[in-house]
Amino acid sequence: MSELMKATGLEKGGIYRHFDSKEQLAAEAFEYAWQAAIDTRRRDLESISNSVEWLKQFVHNFINRRPLVPGGCPLLNMAIDADNGNRALRQLALEALRRWQRDFTEVITRGIARKEIESAVNGSEVADMIISSLEGALMISRLEGNKRALFGIQSCLNSYLDSRLQRWR
Amino acid sequence: MSELMKATGLEKGGIYRHFDSKEQLAAEAFEYAWQAAIDTRRRDLESISNSVEWLKQFVHNFINRRPLVPGGCPLLNMAIDADNGNRALRQLALEALRRWQRDFTEVITRGIARKEIESAVNGSEVADMIISSLEGALMISRLEGNKRALFGIQSCLNSYLDSRLQRWR
Repeated sequence: MSELMKATGLEKGGIYRHFDSKEQLAAEAFEYAWQAAIDTRRRDLESISNSVEWLKQFVHNFINRRPLVPGGCPLLNMAIDADNGNRALRQLALEALRRWQRDFTEVITRGIARKEIESAVNGSEVADMIISSLEGALMISRLEGNKRALFGIQSCLNSYLDSRLQRWR
Repeated sequence: MSELMKATGLEKGGIYRHFDSKEQLAAEAFEYAWQAAIDTRRRDLESISNSVEWLKQFVHNFINRRPLVPGGCPLLNMAIDADNGNRALRQLALEALRRWQRDFTEVITRGIARKEIESAVNGSEVADMIISSLEGALMISRLEGNKRALFGIQSCLNSYLDSRLQRWR
């Protein structure tokens, strides 16, 4: 709260005039930061028709493009913050995760239909693999204070996507 | 602090009698929980001589064995909690991460020396891939309230370790 007062230049009363509760404030801050993160990560993707290239470009964006709102990934932060606390905020994080997983599985399903991706590929497993390794690498990267781990994961994910999704190559 | 008072049955003064500060308390709680997590994850590993099997058993332990201290992974929690806050606690999380990375790279180096692992394998990249995907999948798993994502990651990591570390097979 004190950081928020500093950032906005408002008194506590001034902030609460706009929000019913601390929880509502946290929820709206999360939705704002998450939308900004998603917008950054999805930039330039609509021009890519090949589904495997789309996934690789998403990984590239996640690693190389700085989101508008600093402070790591809003989803990871919220998931940990709300882990044994607020159920409503945890639900919000879960819904954001579901939308993210769905983005990936839709691209993979389309890729299978277009024969760009092997039909036996489990879309939800691949979606979780990409999300997990990016989020975990972001944690390492923020601890280490550099992008070493993220670049390593990008290289691993690229070969994983090439070998696992397009096995006939 | 209120949760701690409830868990220990002690008053605030009773807790602070044992610790110089809230930060010292957080640091010692982290070291305790992290050691418990590491002990759980390393159980039965000393009997496994093959390095690839060692890594797979570690992944199995991470997913299937419940640590003594509940609440997710202490490293992930501490890394996020201390991300834009306490430098001493962040340093502690970084040191725990370094020890974890070293455990893996040592096993991989030994595996290369014994010709169980291809010599071109980058140990630190593999270590980060395992740590990142496990930590990220744990976040998903705690949000979803089940182990689905963790089991998916285990299957991905097993085939990753087989195909990437032992390419000649």
